[in-house]
Amino acid sequence: MKIAVIPGDGIGREVMPEGLRVLEAASRRFGFELQLTHIDWASCDWYVKHGQMMPDDWKAQLEGMDAIYFGAAGWPATVPDHVSLWGSLLKFRREFDQYVNLRPVRLFDGVPCPLAGRRPGDIDYLVVRENTEGEYTNLGGVMYAGTEREIVVQETVMSRFGADRVLRHAFELARSRPRKHLTVATKSNGIAISMPWWDSRADAVARDYPDVTVDKQHIDILSARFVLEPGRFDVVVASNLFGDILSDLGPATTGTIGLAPSGNLNPDRKFPSLFEPVHGSAPDIYGRNIANPVAMIWSGALMLDFLGQRAAHDAIVEAIEQVLVNGPRTRDLGGNASTTEMGEAIAAKL
Amino acid sequence: MKIAVIPGDGIGREVMPEGLRVLEAASRRFGFELQLTHIDWASCDWYVKHGQMMPDDWKAQLEGMDAIYFGAAGWPATVPDHVSLWGSLLKFRREFDQYVNLRPVRLFDGVPCPLAGRRPGDIDYLVVRENTEGEYTNLGGVMYAGTEREIVVQETVMSRFGADRVLRHAFELARSRPRKHLTVATKSNGIAISMPWWDSRADAVARDYPDVTVDKQHIDILSARFVLEPGRFDVVVASNLFGDILSDLGPATTGTIGLAPSGNLNPDRKFPSLFEPVHGSAPDIYGRNIANPVAMIWSGALMLDFLGQRAAHDAIVEAIEQVLVNGPRTRDLGGNASTTEMGEAIAAKL
Ligand SMILES: CC(C)[C@H](C(=O)O)[C@@H](O)C(=O)O
Ligand SMILES: CC(C)[C@H](C(=O)O)[C@@H](O)C(=O)O
Repeated sequence: MKIAVIPGDGIGREVMPEGLRVLEAASRRFGFELQLTHIDWASCDWYVKHGQMMPDDWKAQLEGMDAIYFGAAGWPATVPDHVSLWGSLLKFRREFDQYVNLRPVRLFDGVPCPLAGRRPGDIDYLVVRENTEGEYTNLGGVMYAGTEREIVVQETVMSRFGADRVLRHAFELARSRPRKHLTVATKSNGIAISMPWWDSRADAVARDYPDVTVDKQHIDILSARFVLEPGRFDVVVASNLFGDILSDLGPATTGTIGLAPSGNLNPDRKFPSLFEPVHGSAPDIYGRNIANPVAMIWSGALMLDFLGQRAAHDAIVEAIEQVLVNGPRTRDLGGNASTTEMGEAIAAKL
Repeated sequence: MKIAVIPGDGIGREVMPEGLRVLEAASRRFGFELQLTHIDWASCDWYVKHGQMMPDDWKAQLEGMDAIYFGAAGWPATVPDHVSLWGSLLKFRREFDQYVNLRPVRLFDGVPCPLAGRRPGDIDYLVVRENTEGEYTNLGGVMYAGTEREIVVQETVMSRFGADRVLRHAFELARSRPRKHLTVATKSNGIAISMPWWDSRADAVARDYPDVTVDKQHIDILSARFVLEPGRFDVVVASNLFGDILSDLGPATTGTIGLAPSGNLNPDRKFPSLFEPVHGSAPDIYGRNIANPVAMIWSGALMLDFLGQRAAHDAIVEAIEQVLVNGPRTRDLGGNASTTEMGEAIAAKL
C-alpha cells in the first residue's frame, strides 16, 4: 500500500508517530507492505515559508497513492483558519472527490461517559457526512464593504449528483447493518430552499431501499437526541455542515473527541482517500505530548479496512479497546500517560 | 398589558391553558392587569380552512399589543413545515423585527440531568440567537429541476445592521452578569464568506466592551463543549441557524427540552415581542395531555420580565423550581402527572 503521510499542524505532529507505530505493528503482524511517503506541506509552517499551503504540483506528488494519512491542519496564530483549511484539507476533499466523510461514534468500555447511565453498546452509530458541496463554499461576497450598509451573501450549493450519491452510500451502509435504520438530518422548516429539496432527494433514494427504515429529523432536535436518546441512531446521513456538527457532538457524548476517527472516502478509488482524526490541531494543548493518539490510530484502522485489510482493522480496534480498559490513558481520559506511552501500549497489544 | 394569545398547533394547545393559568395567578398576586385577545389563526387547522396561516390583516389585528404569547406552530401531516412556519412564526420574527431570540439554559434542582455528575448551578447560560436574517432565507432556487443535472442554491444573507445589533445585545447582557463572558459561535474555517465576516463584526463590536471576555468557537467543537464543559458558558451569541441548534442542545443537557423557554424580542418595543416554548408542536405526543407545560409557563415569566414585571418573573421561576423538586412531574421528567396537574401545581405555589 502506498500511503502519503501528512502530519500537518499542532497535535497532528504528535499523534502521527503513534499512528505510524501502530500501522507498522499491523503490517508486521498481518504481512502487508506499507510504502510511506513523508510530506511536510499541507501545514501552516510550510505556508509561512512558501505563501501557500501546498506546492503547485501537489496532485502530481500524490499520484498513485492509495491513501493519505493526515494529522490535522490549522494554526490560527500564523494563518487564518479559512486560508489554511481551504488550501489543504478542504482541497483534498474536493479535488480528490472524497464525497463520503465516514465518522463512527462508539462508546468504548473503559471510557467514562459524560452521559449519565450509558454503557458500552448504548452508543454505536455512524455519521455519514456529505463532503464536497453544501454549506461549505467560498461563493458569495460582500456589498458596501466597510460601510454601515454592508451586506454579505453566502451561497450553499447542492446538486442531485452530490446529494444522491452520499444518500445512496448511507442507505447501503444502513442496509448492511442489523438494524437497517437511517436518520436523515434536515432543517427544512427553516432553510426554505435547499433543505426541502434535500428531503425530497432522501425520499427519492429511499424508494430503492424499502428494507431500510428512515427517520427525518431537524438538526436542532436531532442534536438534542444525540444527548437524550443516543440509542435511537444507527446510520445518520447529513449535509456537509450538519455532518460536521454531529460528528463532533456524537464523539463528545462518548467521552472525548480525542477518540473520533474519520475517513474521507472516494469510494470509486479513482483518487486517494484521506484518513484523519476529527479533533484538529488543538493549539491549546500542542507541544506537551499529552494529546490522545487514539483518533489517529483508529483512523489508520479505517484506512486499512478501506484498503482491504479488515482483519488488521479489527485487531487495531481491539487493541485500542484493551488499552482503554486497562490503561495507560492520556489526560482527556483521566489518566496521565503521554501521547507516546498510549501509542506504544496499543502497538504492543497488537 | 395587552397580550395576544395564540395557541397554534399540537401541544401548543395543551400547554397554553397552563401558561395562562399561571399568568392569571401572577396578575392576582402582583396586581397588574392582563388584557388577553384569543386568536385561532397562525395554526395549520386555520390553514386547512383558509389556505394560508394568517388572515391578510394579521398586523392590524395585532396593532397595539404589548406581546404575543405563542404556543407552537407546525402540523406536517396537513401542511409542510416550511409553509406553516414561514407563514406564521418566522413571519412574526421578521415583520415585527424580533431580532433577538433569547433562550436561557439552566439545570434545575429536581430534574435528572442527562450529563453525569452535573448539579444545579453547573449549567446556567443564555443563548442569544440572531432571529431575522442569516441562514434562514427563502432566497435561491433550483436549476434543471427534475433532471439529473439538478442544482440548488440557497442564500445566507447577513447585514452589518443585523449582526451588530444582536452582537451588541449579547455584549450588553454579558456585561450585566457577574462573569462577563461571551462565547461567539462561528464556523469561519469552513463557511468561507459569511463566517469570517461574522467574526470580524464580533471583533469590531468587542472593542466597545473591553470588560467582557470573548471566546470564539467553531460550532462543531462548541456543540461538543455544551456536553463536555457546560460550565464554560455564560452568554453565547450565534447566527440564526447555529442559535437554533444550540438552543435545543443546551436544554437537552439540562434534562428535557420541555423546560426551555424563549423570548423573540424587539428590544426597541416598536412591535410586539413574542414568547414561546422552544419545543414546538410535538405531533407525536399531542392529544394525551402529557406535555410538560414548564417551557410555556417560563416563557410567560420572560414575557412579564420584558414588560417590566421582574418580581412576577422571579416568583414564577421560583414556583417552577419548587414543583420540579417536589412534583407533580410530567413523564419527560420521570413522573406521571398530566399537563394540567403540573400547571395547576405551579399556579398554586404562586
Ligand atoms: C420551527 C422552527 C422553524 C423554529 C426555528 O428553527 O427557528 C424552531 O425550531 C425554533 O427554534 O424556534
Ligand atoms: C477544520 C474544519 C474545516 C473541518 C470541517 O469543518 O470539515 C473539521 O472541523 C472537520 O470536521 O474535519
